[in-house]
Amino acid sequence: MTDSRSLITNWFKNLQDHICTQLEDLDGKGKFIEDAWQRDGGGGGRSRVMQGQMIEKGGVNFSAVHGEMSEKTAKALNMSAGAFYATGVSIVLHPKNPNMPIIHKNIRYFENEGGQWWFGGGIDLTPHYVVEVDAQFFHQSLKAVCDRFHAGFYPKHKAWADDYFYIRHRKETRGIGGIFFDRQNEQNTGLSKELLWEYVQAVGMSFCPIYEELARRNSEKPTNPTEKKWQALRRGRYVEFNLVWDAGTKFGLETDGRTESILMSLPPKAQWIYDFRPKIGSKEAKTLEFLKKGVNWAL
Amino acid sequence: MTDSRSLITNWFKNLQDHICTQLEDLDGKGKFIEDAWQRDGGGGGRSRVMQGQMIEKGGVNFSAVHGEMSEKTAKALNMSAGAFYATGVSIVLHPKNPNMPIIHKNIRYFENEGGQWWFGGGIDLTPHYVVEVDAQFFHQSLKAVCDRFHAGFYPKHKAWADDYFYIRHRKETRGIGGIFFDRQNEQNTGLSKELLWEYVQAVGMSFCPIYEELARRNSEKPTNPTEKKWQALRRGRYVEFNLVWDAGTKFGLETDGRTESILMSLPPKAQWIYDFRPKIGSKEAKTLEFLKKGVNWAL
Repeated sequence: MTDSRSLITNWFKNLQDHICTQLEDLDGKGKFIEDAWQRDGGGGGRSRVMQGQMIEKGGVNFSAVHGEMSEKTAKALNMSAGAFYATGVSIVLHPKNPNMPIIHKNIRYFENEGGQWWFGGGIDLTPHYVVEVDAQFFHQSLKAVCDRFHAGFYPKHKAWADDYFYIRHRKETRGIGGIFFDRQNEQNTGLSKELLWEYVQAVGMSFCPIYEELARRNSEKPTNPTEKKWQALRRGRYVEFNLVWDAGTKFGLETDGRTESILMSLPPKAQWIYDFRPKIGSKEAKTLEFLKKGVNWAL
Repeated sequence: MTDSRSLITNWFKNLQDHICTQLEDLDGKGKFIEDAWQRDGGGGGRSRVMQGQMIEKGGVNFSAVHGEMSEKTAKALNMSAGAFYATGVSIVLHPKNPNMPIIHKNIRYFENEGGQWWFGGGIDLTPHYVVEVDAQFFHQSLKAVCDRFHAGFYPKHKAWADDYFYIRHRKETRGIGGIFFDRQNEQNTGLSKELLWEYVQAVGMSFCPIYEELARRNSEKPTNPTEKKWQALRRGRYVEFNLVWDAGTKFGLETDGRTESILMSLPPKAQWIYDFRPKIGSKEAKTLEFLKKGVNWAL
């Protein structure tokens, strides 16, 4: 791949445009507002946020930053110091209807002057209420994307998501997982940069059809105050994961990243009730039973 | 101090009782519900939570835990391994009225078989709206408590609170601070255990009169939706501090502490809006101007 940096960057930018257009169509009312920003050390990004009728708070961020990585940071991240370049697209959508899941997607590329490069990314789902057929549809869709490139991708990246999106202090997964991968390159996968890049693009392009199908199934279901309250409590868990355990969020906040873009992932409103436990046999209790590692949804 | 462990523990328990009674009287409606718990490794606690008419969500926790500290944990905490004992009282009150401040208090005692012991604690205030005369009253009250024991306490512990309750990624203090101190013993203060213990008791006893006066001044002020929204946003900042920066919370969650007691500090409801900025000249903007280190309130 010659000049992969600009090729990937442009593709990511176009993906952001594409997804924003699709989401505006889907929502039918909300419009993304762009906030272009520059980074002191080099580069910048386009944060786009919408408040719609279906999407209560949604963010689609593109960034491409570069600069010099200090010895200290490089060591902490187990990479070589010096000039680096990083670009990516991140999405988090918090729907209004508690019957719709929260969705998150991220794809990213990194390279440095030491000749290191890698891709990372993933898509994962956090339903307020786990609907088994939707969870199966979601994982089967991701598995189909993965299988086009390597039979090992889905099992490996699915397990990685289970481990990554885990709220240790609650002994719960954040949601039903999905796929997650980081620092994928030729050395550790045995696959070419071209193939990995195609995989990352496929993950990026899979987002809209999957989310549109979930919206078609769930976004107009009737709801009630019990469900709204449960949604607010589950959003509280989302906050807990992102602020306590998410490595990307922690790294961003500790290294003086752009706070508003990083915390775009937080829900519009969240709630905490001391030691809340759903009634035995309720659909809230049933959802909790699904929030564990190792559930095989892609049957 | 002979048998300081049981003396301190009993005093802390009585303080919890006293504060709960006072707060129930003050609220006029809410009653504390107790949740007694045991710790697998040894000891336990009494978590008490109330939902009242003035206090939307309040927690007053007592705990006394003991066990064996591993070499690894001891090293991370820069102390000696082996048998330890730790007891404390923690309070966080989230008021309903945005004109009332959020208040936090903690006092604690630690000892181990290596002969180490220390006290820690503090009180700090997080007004949704900074009212200058109240901020002065709060800091003057704390200074008066400190000055009874050592002229150096207030300046040192006030600066410590400014540094501790700092939301680095927002470049804001959590509120207007107060006093904070940790690991105070004979070696590092040059003061006797008796004197430090009296100071800790005085800090503990100062809580009710201070909070009652703030309630008298503010809890029945009329409010409006703009203020309620601002309150929810400030509560979001409270969540950010506690989950991202608070050393006690992080340590508790990472070492498998009792999650519900640790996260009792979180507000009942919180809100996040992308890049929210109050109008120039508004009272919200004025509050933000006060959220910095080094403001001298105890004039």
